[in-house]
Amino acid sequence: MNGLNLTLLTDLYEMTMMQGYKQAHVKNHEVVFDLFYRTNPSNSGYAIAAGLQQAIDYIKNLSFSEEDLNYLRSLNLFTEDFINDLRNFKFTGDIYAIPEGTVVFPKEPLLRVKAPIFEAQFIETALLNIINHQSLIATKAARVCWAAEGDSVLEFGLRRAQGPDAGIYGARAAMIGGCTGTSNVLAGKMFDIPVKGTHAHSWVMSFPDELTAFREYAKAFPDNCILLVDTYDTLKSGVPNAIQVFKELREKNIKPKIIGIRLDSGDLAYLSKEARKMLDQAGFPEAIISASSDLDEYLIADLKRQGAKITMWGVGTRLITSKDCPAFGGVYKLAAERNEEGVLEPKIKLSENPDKVTNPGVKKIIRIYDKASGKIKADLIALDDETFDESKPLKLFDPVNTWKQMKLKPGTFTLRELLVPVFINGECVYQSPSVMEIREYCQHELSTLWDEAKRLTNPYIIPVDLSKKLYDLKKQMIDDIRGTSIDE
Amino acid sequence: MNGLNLTLLTDLYEMTMMQGYKQAHVKNHEVVFDLFYRTNPSNSGYAIAAGLQQAIDYIKNLSFSEEDLNYLRSLNLFTEDFINDLRNFKFTGDIYAIPEGTVVFPKEPLLRVKAPIFEAQFIETALLNIINHQSLIATKAARVCWAAEGDSVLEFGLRRAQGPDAGIYGARAAMIGGCTGTSNVLAGKMFDIPVKGTHAHSWVMSFPDELTAFREYAKAFPDNCILLVDTYDTLKSGVPNAIQVFKELREKNIKPKIIGIRLDSGDLAYLSKEARKMLDQAGFPEAIISASSDLDEYLIADLKRQGAKITMWGVGTRLITSKDCPAFGGVYKLAAERNEEGVLEPKIKLSENPDKVTNPGVKKIIRIYDKASGKIKADLIALDDETFDESKPLKLFDPVNTWKQMKLKPGTFTLRELLVPVFINGECVYQSPSVMEIREYCQHELSTLWDEAKRLTNPYIIPVDLSKKLYDLKKQMIDDIRGTSIDE
Repeated sequence: MNGLNLTLLTDLYEMTMMQGYKQAHVKNHEVVFDLFYRTNPSNSGYAIAAGLQQAIDYIKNLSFSEEDLNYLRSLNLFTEDFINDLRNFKFTGDIYAIPEGTVVFPKEPLLRVKAPIFEAQFIETALLNIINHQSLIATKAARVCWAAEGDSVLEFGLRRAQGPDAGIYGARAAMIGGCTGTSNVLAGKMFDIPVKGTHAHSWVMSFPDELTAFREYAKAFPDNCILLVDTYDTLKSGVPNAIQVFKELREKNIKPKIIGIRLDSGDLAYLSKEARKMLDQAGFPEAIISASSDLDEYLIADLKRQGAKITMWGVGTRLITSKDCPAFGGVYKLAAERNEEGVLEPKIKLSENPDKVTNPGVKKIIRIYDKASGKIKADLIALDDETFDESKPLKLFDPVNTWKQMKLKPGTFTLRELLVPVFINGECVYQSPSVMEIREYCQHELSTLWDEAKRLTNPYIIPVDLSKKLYDLKKQMIDDIRGTSIDE
Repeated sequence: MNGLNLTLLTDLYEMTMMQGYKQAHVKNHEVVFDLFYRTNPSNSGYAIAAGLQQAIDYIKNLSFSEEDLNYLRSLNLFTEDFINDLRNFKFTGDIYAIPEGTVVFPKEPLLRVKAPIFEAQFIETALLNIINHQSLIATKAARVCWAAEGDSVLEFGLRRAQGPDAGIYGARAAMIGGCTGTSNVLAGKMFDIPVKGTHAHSWVMSFPDELTAFREYAKAFPDNCILLVDTYDTLKSGVPNAIQVFKELREKNIKPKIIGIRLDSGDLAYLSKEARKMLDQAGFPEAIISASSDLDEYLIADLKRQGAKITMWGVGTRLITSKDCPAFGGVYKLAAERNEEGVLEPKIKLSENPDKVTNPGVKKIIRIYDKASGKIKADLIALDDETFDESKPLKLFDPVNTWKQMKLKPGTFTLRELLVPVFINGECVYQSPSVMEIREYCQHELSTLWDEAKRLTNPYIIPVDLSKKLYDLKKQMIDDIRGTSIDE
């Protein structure tokens, strides 16, 4: 993503539409688009917003080179007039966004873009690509770390990631979600995040025997001596050889900061319990047992339940690809358009599927916390010009089953607006925190979720309601469109 | 991937091992690594090799900047001596590979790397990342295109891809696998592949009504007028309005090269049949019906079976992420190491899981074709110094169930060696074809597969056998290691 200019990272139809808007003389009509998603990945009870920093970089770097323009010209689709417009293209609008690391729920705009339709339309694809990817992996990482119950989780997936960026920005997102380190050196350098790793099977195989390989590794890295014990036979060869090397270090009075073993195959519950016994009996209760091998939140939770003696988890493929749910379904929908009277007029998209009907208008998101516990009680999607007051009672209702209502007394709740300004009139007004700062913020965010909402399967769903004003607007607009057609 | 130098795109443990090899005085030991995979993605009967061009670019561009070295120094893991070695790091070895677009099967080395262990170890992670990703998507695309039975399949997944590279190189791989175009403009420019697209729902929503939106689109793109008809109501509003616009074009004597509609929601079988009738009755039998909406090979095959009148398929999320199987399990395993006598000595990795025991030695792959049909009969993994002769009988046997044997008479089969030289002594000797040339080659490759092997579920599995010599070597090495331990 860095280095390569991503201006052309867009679907062709964004550009045919841009030319169309120009020809229809509406290219400068101001519009509002919402970037939101409809369902949490992996049936989770929440998601973690991520990718905003890269979205900002993308917007800042928008610029068509002459080479880009020549390429577009070669497609024989575009007028010279349109291509000329692109030559000085820059983003001049406003973007509000939910900060990275925030706990988010379906239907809430993670980004709200207000700009001339010519610009707002163009940036759709890249914004979705960036936000969808990183939010997906950050969410998966939060789930995996939750299953690990405070143990260290390392991101080990680079070799199975969907290309270099997926490895690099996936590692970034995994850190935001709660991982404590990554194997990915380039990500380590780019984002100043901890990098971790010891050795592979090939290390062991490249020496005449396992014991020699372990001895050589201990000699090279006496301070951090985690030995991979499953190349030939974990309990008969690997663990005894590791213990032998730890004893030799002790005899030589070498005291590594960390000693331990890594299991990468076989039954991790059984092997870790047996290895724990062997290490303890040999006088190495401080030796760490780490494990990798097709781990995910479900397997880690299961291994924990079975008393596995593992305290450090290397998670690869299933985290970096979010294997059970490899796409985050973010969409980008028109919510309003400035009409001839200069008013931002709400827009709606209908669908056979009621879940796909959009929320019209310029909106904000109010998070409602339970004051006593600090936990999230509900979110409220409201029109941007509405005001809410902690000192007044707050009435919420479910937008589908409207009889489901909640009345909050003043003093029992606090309010927080989630969308913050990122670009104003095309100027970036937001300074992204470092990845480790975002990670820390995300840890706090996760603490505002009830445990029931973090359950891996069938979690408690925190209500996301509409304000009365937004609900009425939406209902009216649906009636207006549907009222004109009668089913035959 | 382009632009950003990928030299640090590696797992940290490759580098700790490198320093370890150096300290153990074995860094220049020549080794052979195989990059292969164990099971076809999506339970397919085959896979398509892809990503070689980017793997070559990566190897060619290997170079540590002073900034990289400073970063590594800051980790307090590496000696100054080791960091100095990296300053002039370049790849000096040999790489043989199976060309992109080739049909491949599990256990076959897609790449074979022979180099000093210091270099061969380093490049593991990035090679796996690149080859795993593109082979995954090329394979998925081949399956999707097969289900579409010759219809055009467009890759529309950029917004849901796992980051920019996944979109860009995923589009490249999708073209190799058989797609006819992509929506991704940057991929179009980079690889000279066709880009496609028309308009989105937001186009329709941004105009006062659907008919106006369609008219404006037809005015802007009279030559390629595909209208998205499901923004409000497909059959009551979208299709009638599209027909109205097609009629108006006809009345004005404007003859677009392509007219048609796109369906993006609802029941695609029903809607396409109804729309077909409406278009035909209105006198537009030439109007194309294209469709998108969570398509994959299974849904396309089902829609075909139900007589859906769709002839152009836009496939997004499920192709670009290979949703049902988002990782290609390529691994990189040590196969041989030059010993003190100067002989490349075979190496093996055992595992509790028999499927994970590696094939030792320097190997090649012989593809055996049925001479009459040109179809693949079997593949043979053999030692590199073995010779096979089309004029002599060929005996094959299954390496697990050795009683399963096949004897081929001379004249009934032809042989082809799959691995070709790519780097020799660090110099690239391979010229990659263009993506569209690879695509064409892949189409021919797919024609060498029996239909039974292309079945989407439970396909016929083409045998991949070991030569007698390799089989005997492997068996002997397993016995040598296991023979020394007695189960208690």
